[in-house]
Amino acid sequence: MPTDVKALLFDVFGTVVDWRTSLIDNFTKWGNAKGIDGDWIGLVDAWRGAYMPSMDEVRKHPDRGFVILDDLQRKSVEPLAARLGITGLTSADFDYLTRGWHSLEPWPDSVSGLTRLKTNFIISPLSNGNVALLTNMAKHAGLPWDLVLSAEVFKHYKPDPETYLGAAKILGLRPEQVMLVAAHNNDLAAARAVGLKTAFVPRPTEYGPLQNRDFGPEGEWDFVVKDLNDLADKLGC
Amino acid sequence: MPTDVKALLFDVFGTVVDWRTSLIDNFTKWGNAKGIDGDWIGLVDAWRGAYMPSMDEVRKHPDRGFVILDDLQRKSVEPLAARLGITGLTSADFDYLTRGWHSLEPWPDSVSGLTRLKTNFIISPLSNGNVALLTNMAKHAGLPWDLVLSAEVFKHYKPDPETYLGAAKILGLRPEQVMLVAAHNNDLAAARAVGLKTAFVPRPTEYGPLQNRDFGPEGEWDFVVKDLNDLADKLGC
Repeated sequence: MPTDVKALLFDVFGTVVDWRTSLIDNFTKWGNAKGIDGDWIGLVDAWRGAYMPSMDEVRKHPDRGFVILDDLQRKSVEPLAARLGITGLTSADFDYLTRGWHSLEPWPDSVSGLTRLKTNFIISPLSNGNVALLTNMAKHAGLPWDLVLSAEVFKHYKPDPETYLGAAKILGLRPEQVMLVAAHNNDLAAARAVGLKTAFVPRPTEYGPLQNRDFGPEGEWDFVVKDLNDLADKLGC
Repeated sequence: MPTDVKALLFDVFGTVVDWRTSLIDNFTKWGNAKGIDGDWIGLVDAWRGAYMPSMDEVRKHPDRGFVILDDLQRKSVEPLAARLGITGLTSADFDYLTRGWHSLEPWPDSVSGLTRLKTNFIISPLSNGNVALLTNMAKHAGLPWDLVLSAEVFKHYKPDPETYLGAAKILGLRPEQVMLVAAHNNDLAAARAVGLKTAFVPRPTEYGPLQNRDFGPEGEWDFVVKDLNDLADKLGC
């Protein structure tokens, strides 16, 4: 057990919150109230599909400056809605959809697990979501973060090494004093490559029927746990 | 009442925590245990005296890069100790003294007031202390911040406008949706100059017998309160 760990950093989308079910429920109810019969499942899945490529554009072109996730998501959603035949949405409607990412619901174990882990560790997100998104989500979902770290603070999206190393540095810690907790093997691999400790938590329903990876650990992670309460058990919290 | 305010940002040293009493108590006990009979009151007061000038050096020379407060404090304390005749301190001892700023005690109303305010508002420090310092202090003192904003995030010390405006921007808010709470009129004046709302809370014993200002409000602040519980009362929390 890496007893020298002082801070636990959490991937958020998929690891702490169930973005897919939350967005589909939100948009379905909203669409019904507005009389818009859209393919919200299709939109949410396509939107998440656009997530990595939109960040990769920022990562590949640092000269263009950092663009926060809210702005990337707002830009992605409009053509996706058109492609799916969801018409008649106003600019304010697209703002509403984008804002949906600020009010995602936690997995059942997230709040209790984080609350336990907070007693012995500094706990923070380390997410590609921007600070406002993560802050509003924490208020909405009751996530008891000690602080909010985001790609936005370091001007680098994961899996750039600057994000992981920047988080350790801003906490005044060495990389091995920080552990990333994530449901995604690629995120953990990038964190481990620069010296962080790692913990894998499977979220096999994250992508619904589209899930095709991350059903189990694919690396020698320091911890493999069932959920965040299991992590608290294993860390003696 | 500025009902559109979504986030309350707090000056920390003096406003939320009693740095002077905390440091004097800490160093006196530590000195006694180590058999070092130093003028700890003199050291703490002199150290705080070096605080503004050391940040002003950073503010005046942005080309040299931003230097976090921990590093400024560490650099200041060694010559001050020598000047006060406190000898025999090792590098690790100076690290200990510097780390003292991470474990300051809150004023009696701080934790209860912040806990109430957190129910209706985003609450965050907006301090010249670095992120690690503020995070460790929050763990030590039980300050229930939603997130930790610091001059370090914006690479500008208060009262530079970039600090206040950077905080509003990173929260996705307009300046008038953010209120600075501080015991220092100059901090509030700088915040108001760039459009933030302001609340003054007097801390007339902050500097002990050396206090020569900030006994009362010196501007048309949006709120003047007795303490953080009074602010919670006035904001309906």
